[in-house]
Amino acid sequence: MSRFWSPTVQNLTPYVPGEQPQMQRLVKLNTNESPYGPSPKALAAINSQNNADLRLYPDPEGLALKKAIAHLHGLEPNQVFLGNGSDEVLAHVFLGLLKHQDAVLFPDITYSFYPVYCKLFGIEYQTIPLGPEFEIRTADYIKPNGGIIFPNPNAPTGKALPRSEIEALLSENKNSVVVIDEAYVDYGTASCIPLLHGAACPENLLVVHTLSKSRALAGLRVGFAVGHPDLIAGLERVKNSFNSYPLGRLAQAGAIAAIEDQAHLLETTNKVMQTRKCLVEELKALGFETLPSSANFILTRHPQRAGEDLYQALRERGIIVRHFKSPRIADYLRITIGTDEQSNELVMALKDITNNL
Amino acid sequence: MSRFWSPTVQNLTPYVPGEQPQMQRLVKLNTNESPYGPSPKALAAINSQNNADLRLYPDPEGLALKKAIAHLHGLEPNQVFLGNGSDEVLAHVFLGLLKHQDAVLFPDITYSFYPVYCKLFGIEYQTIPLGPEFEIRTADYIKPNGGIIFPNPNAPTGKALPRSEIEALLSENKNSVVVIDEAYVDYGTASCIPLLHGAACPENLLVVHTLSKSRALAGLRVGFAVGHPDLIAGLERVKNSFNSYPLGRLAQAGAIAAIEDQAHLLETTNKVMQTRKCLVEELKALGFETLPSSANFILTRHPQRAGEDLYQALRERGIIVRHFKSPRIADYLRITIGTDEQSNELVMALKDITNNL
Repeated sequence: MSRFWSPTVQNLTPYVPGEQPQMQRLVKLNTNESPYGPSPKALAAINSQNNADLRLYPDPEGLALKKAIAHLHGLEPNQVFLGNGSDEVLAHVFLGLLKHQDAVLFPDITYSFYPVYCKLFGIEYQTIPLGPEFEIRTADYIKPNGGIIFPNPNAPTGKALPRSEIEALLSENKNSVVVIDEAYVDYGTASCIPLLHGAACPENLLVVHTLSKSRALAGLRVGFAVGHPDLIAGLERVKNSFNSYPLGRLAQAGAIAAIEDQAHLLETTNKVMQTRKCLVEELKALGFETLPSSANFILTRHPQRAGEDLYQALRERGIIVRHFKSPRIADYLRITIGTDEQSNELVMALKDITNNL
Repeated sequence: MSRFWSPTVQNLTPYVPGEQPQMQRLVKLNTNESPYGPSPKALAAINSQNNADLRLYPDPEGLALKKAIAHLHGLEPNQVFLGNGSDEVLAHVFLGLLKHQDAVLFPDITYSFYPVYCKLFGIEYQTIPLGPEFEIRTADYIKPNGGIIFPNPNAPTGKALPRSEIEALLSENKNSVVVIDEAYVDYGTASCIPLLHGAACPENLLVVHTLSKSRALAGLRVGFAVGHPDLIAGLERVKNSFNSYPLGRLAQAGAIAAIEDQAHLLETTNKVMQTRKCLVEELKALGFETLPSSANFILTRHPQRAGEDLYQALRERGIIVRHFKSPRIADYLRITIGTDEQSNELVMALKDITNNL
């Protein structure tokens, strides 16, 4: 604490990301990274830009990347907003589109960065409890609000809503922005992006994506949002009042190549979904209860063992997963889907741990 | 304009960066980039990290880079704050350290992003006029304030203050943070960083640096601030409430190597200072009046020609410089120091243009 901090800082409770341990020989299943590398074409594109031209500023608009994203998703470039990871995109979304008189609504169990943004920018928020099966009940969001945001599939539950349910929500919520955070959409959920096509594009739907998960570029820091051009224009104003050049030359080049390599995306996400299916079955055989997941992670618990204990026992065996202390999920572990080999190591370790019950 | 924009957005007037034209065969002297490439060691370090590990998040703390910066400048790592370019660093500084009841003070002619940050975050500010010779008069800042910020050397004037004058300001201004933006310090100005050494480190001095100018890495997006550990802790709270991972793996690796290659910095900045000296003399022969510059740019005017006209005439010849419309400097051009060859092209063009007077 320092008397030089602004009152804003004094009230902050920063987000705590999953750790990035430097230990060797670690099975790292805690931050939902892809177990497979990015598209080799992304690495080649980065390499081609790694030269003396790094002395020059990047394109502040990132137009070539916007065009690549627009082309992939059947949109116009002015429907695309870019950021230094989807966390930066979300920060600008909270300040630029969700800060209104009424409270912004999001689930009580969800990405824990949302309330942190609210505190940073002085935004009122209200959390809406998930249902008994950890499901988002969109009917509960039909009330006056300054905006609605949730991930689909939700994190850390992994549970997805069908697109039709979000369409219904949009038809009943016309006076504020609805933000669907699709960080994990590529692992088996229908994206809401097709709703943005053409003249029927709703004025108030924004969809946020990241290249850190299914595109396997967490180390490059690229995310984006797509929506109505007027929403994007508002975000551009915020971005241009914060940092003109959020994406460097290497990030833009790598992201374009990654976005264009849809084959690599499909191959690697299919492998992850296959591993997820096997892992859920094997955990079931060990007595674990796992929520149905549409993400590259699962939320699972063992009825006879506390989440914290399991977390520590795995850690002692060099396997890092994520454990949240919030009441309703304190007995669960969130486990990133790794390779089949990592999955086997995890199952062996859990077998060993639960045998000692 | 959209009804979904927050009131904050409606009031913004975003910063407009110098253009990044895509034209070929251009003499680009408008955004103060280094005319020489970055350290070859930086390119090699980036290359060594451009692999499948890009699937993994970077170190959110950037500890290795903090250590490299601390080592170079004789500081401790907890005196170093990192950002996605110094523009992001400055954004967090405004929100975290300069948002108080009293107005923040900065010069009327200075980096034009400062008032933009103030509008974004709802910060009161007051501009202090430069003196008749475009000099910062530190005595004018001795009054109640929520913080003081100016570049040293100042931009776009290029004029520098001696360190002793900033020390004197610090001794009279103990109740708010003084931020010295040293983006251009490596071109002949004494840095204030030595004031931060050891136990005498003032509680309220923050010094901001960028790797975009003298380190020739504008395309990589890395900046930093150094100061008292308590100030840095406040900035970390803001950063961790905004974006956990502002610097990707390639940016961290490249920045470490660039920071460690002091020989490359000295060689390239010396060349720029030599070119600057020649250019100022050649412009004088053409009748130009140039402010004494300690930066990698100059602010110059021709008594018989409007700044706007000169800007356009150069542009028609494929030479891009920067022109600001603010009253006191509307007749000046801000010209980045390029290579000797670029400098010669510029002088030939200006000779041609002014001959036609």
